Amino acid sequence: MDAVGAPDALAGGAAGHERLAELIPLALGTLAAGGTERDGAAPAGGPAAVAAALSGARPLVPAEGVGAERALAELGTLFAAGSVDPAEPWCAAHLHCPPLAVAVAADVVAGALNPSMDSWDQAPVATELEREFVTEMARLCYPDEPAPDAVVTTGGTESNLLGLLLARERNPAVRPVCGASAHHSVARAAWLLGLPAPVVVDCDDQRIRPAALETALGTALDGAPAVVVATAGTTDTGEIDPLPEVARICRRHNARLHVDAAYGGLALCSPSLRSRLDGLGEADSIALDLHKFGWQPISAGLFVSRVASDLDALTVRAEYLNSEDDTEAGLPDVLGRSLRTSRRPDVFRMAVTMRALGVRGMGAMVEQCCRTAAEVAGLIDADPGLTLWGSPKLSTVLFRPAVADDITVPAANALVARIRRTLLEAGTAVVGRATIGGRIWLKLTFLHPHATAADYSGLLGEILAVARAEMTPPAARAASAEGAVTS
Amino acid sequence: MDAVGAPDALAGGAAGHERLAELIPLALGTLAAGGTERDGAAPAGGPAAVAAALSGARPLVPAEGVGAERALAELGTLFAAGSVDPAEPWCAAHLHCPPLAVAVAADVVAGALNPSMDSWDQAPVATELEREFVTEMARLCYPDEPAPDAVVTTGGTESNLLGLLLARERNPAVRPVCGASAHHSVARAAWLLGLPAPVVVDCDDQRIRPAALETALGTALDGAPAVVVATAGTTDTGEIDPLPEVARICRRHNARLHVDAAYGGLALCSPSLRSRLDGLGEADSIALDLHKFGWQPISAGLFVSRVASDLDALTVRAEYLNSEDDTEAGLPDVLGRSLRTSRRPDVFRMAVTMRALGVRGMGAMVEQCCRTAAEVAGLIDADPGLTLWGSPKLSTVLFRPAVADDITVPAANALVARIRRTLLEAGTAVVGRATIGGRIWLKLTFLHPHATAADYSGLLGEILAVARAEMTPPAARAASAEGAVTS
Repeated sequence: MDAVGAPDALAGGAAGHERLAELIPLALGTLAAGGTERDGAAPAGGPAAVAAALSGARPLVPAEGVGAERALAELGTLFAAGSVDPAEPWCAAHLHCPPLAVAVAADVVAGALNPSMDSWDQAPVATELEREFVTEMARLCYPDEPAPDAVVTTGGTESNLLGLLLARERNPAVRPVCGASAHHSVARAAWLLGLPAPVVVDCDDQRIRPAALETALGTALDGAPAVVVATAGTTDTGEIDPLPEVARICRRHNARLHVDAAYGGLALCSPSLRSRLDGLGEADSIALDLHKFGWQPISAGLFVSRVASDLDALTVRAEYLNSEDDTEAGLPDVLGRSLRTSRRPDVFRMAVTMRALGVRGMGAMVEQCCRTAAEVAGLIDADPGLTLWGSPKLSTVLFRPAVADDITVPAANALVARIRRTLLEAGTAVVGRATIGGRIWLKLTFLHPHATAADYSGLLGEILAVARAEMTPPAARAASAEGAVTS
Repeated sequence: MDAVGAPDALAGGAAGHERLAELIPLALGTLAAGGTERDGAAPAGGPAAVAAALSGARPLVPAEGVGAERALAELGTLFAAGSVDPAEPWCAAHLHCPPLAVAVAADVVAGALNPSMDSWDQAPVATELEREFVTEMARLCYPDEPAPDAVVTTGGTESNLLGLLLARERNPAVRPVCGASAHHSVARAAWLLGLPAPVVVDCDDQRIRPAALETALGTALDGAPAVVVATAGTTDTGEIDPLPEVARICRRHNARLHVDAAYGGLALCSPSLRSRLDGLGEADSIALDLHKFGWQPISAGLFVSRVASDLDALTVRAEYLNSEDDTEAGLPDVLGRSLRTSRRPDVFRMAVTMRALGVRGMGAMVEQCCRTAAEVAGLIDADPGLTLWGSPKLSTVLFRPAVADDITVPAANALVARIRRTLLEAGTAVVGRATIGGRIWLKLTFLHPHATAADYSGLLGEILAVARAEMTPPAARAASAEGAVTS
């Protein structure tokens, strides 16, 4: 036991907030100190350096503890220094958002009380809050439906799994169908559920080709039951499948339609962007991720169902959690709201955030990201040293050095992949990649709600500089390095 | 925008910790205020009162936001007042632990930086830390194995799913087998994976009967491939299956063995309790939950594999996350460490906690809970008004008013269920229930690491008082109430 408090002090109870008031400033101090040490978007030195930095804190599971303060201070600083920080604009590879302070602060309340969403008597207000929040979010997705509903998931992967699972429960012979640009979690869900691998439909410019879908449902499956997964915001390019046509074709073939809107869904909050999601309301179910647009810490997924009763497929009875007589006596039965049993109240920080910002505030942040993407795409297009893949549909921009157009495809791919790794290993920037038609592109995914295009012109310059260095023959590079040393 | 800060301020970046230092004290204030308002283990009034309390904070998804401070203050106080608090000793129904302050404080660091565990470039140090932590925990479970490994899960439900999944990937014809006292997630996993429903083996006193398992594997399945799920700490009673005999039978029949030690696993940390888990090291895989013993906020599950390469079944390739050339160039491939894609760094708070407390500190907390259970069982056994189900094996005690022995089974069951609901709806206590052989028992699950038996004698008195009131004929109750009013 040290002077400040016992290492086994609890976060809850009458005194919990006092102990948290001692420890959390220490945690915030490690964020500051580790961030200063890192000094940018990413730690320098790549995997070896990051792993080596941890050696001072081994073992992580010692026989005797080192106390709360020391463990938190040491590991917190290492963690902050060795993480990439999506709140740095140059950390822009993935659908990996910088969380809002209000969401992180709200999570302290949830973490300290630790409601478990598998029974009402472990989470009284959390279950009521969740019911209210998911109903309001479901109405945002399905404004014209009488009784939509939603459940909270760990993210798009679990939501896509539920999309296939509900279809399987209606018909065990169901065949999954998706576009070639669908997320890998669709095939993974089919595998997990014991369904056949998805029938993959050709895309034009990363969007499902309606004629190909028509053929898949009409000829290839020959009337077999199907569940089609369309995408509103592909991971690689942010493209949105032609939802109205897809929905029409599904209706004609009596196929269920699940839309993976994990990326694009929150564009519903923006009056200027909402129309890009036209047709979404015709889906049977929708995946939304508030840990992308939505600015929540992971995990914050929603699986939205057009018809509430479709979720009955998740019903499960466990005597100790939702016995029939308890349910009859009025205790809400919440076990069937998830595939998990113990479950975090991720809804709390989602609800606090949406109530803090409102739909308008959330929509403005989505718009800002899409605006930055469009402007950065403009900068790239105007730069003769860079080639733009296409105009961004949401907030993803693909491009590469123009020199890649002048060399073989394998050489160009190797160049682009090396540029990304060089920037990452130097700690300069976290840039993504996407492979389209066998060619690798650099990818910037704009999820920083305060960054502007001006924040990225320097990054484009760095990318060009690395490309030039990579294209310089080794002999010239050596000579130039020698010149630098002797001059 | 209000005076203190913008509602859309980020938790990360150079200024994030400053904004958190404004908002988190506000969050801690709601914990204090809401806790005072609740004044005990649970909110009074049942579902109707809890739902009504929320009405002042509607809508949760408004068109215009109310700002971060107001949303956090209002919803935080409602949340704290309307939650049950497992840090109050009389909140003792479920395997629902009061989290440690150090774990909640550590989660602030993780939440602010938001590493996503699906690729190294989103979570450099978090992936290294996870690799180290799970390896050390795997060695705790399998001290005699050369290369055990583990992955982080959302809890026992996902770990049990992985146990069946790995067996299915070795042989698609695998049949799940489990004891009658196994957790409901075993059957749910079989359903999800498209496997046949588990063969259920009879139990003696809630423990698998070895002869019944022998018959199931030998005669009923007639040599078909099987995966047996045994339990180390059943949810209802905390019983531990006879693991050495179960392991021997599995070996003889070439069946895989998964042990659901979500509850009992952390008893490995205690020199005095460890022997109760003898045989655990013979399992092919083990489920552990650090959000039970382990005192983490949900979720903090581990799936431990005796042989690291068994986890290869989870391998998946997604070009944007773990392309082959990146892996060849030395970027660790982490996508196959989970069924999820985006994934919280729950490992960070687990690692900070274990390093703070050490194995010894953690073991001492487990021992304290088991000691309290044994002592409370003693109090119950000595009380002629109460009937004890049996001596506790871990920290779960089942009992009921002795009067239940004198009435019909349906009347006794209704009485016990009503006692539990009455205490819950009054906000007095959160007591659990278990149905054993058609009879309902009250259940206390001791997970409060500082409570002692003395904290519970008053609760036993309350239970007897409610039982007496429930057994009083309505006419007598009315007369007594009238007397109280007029006297």
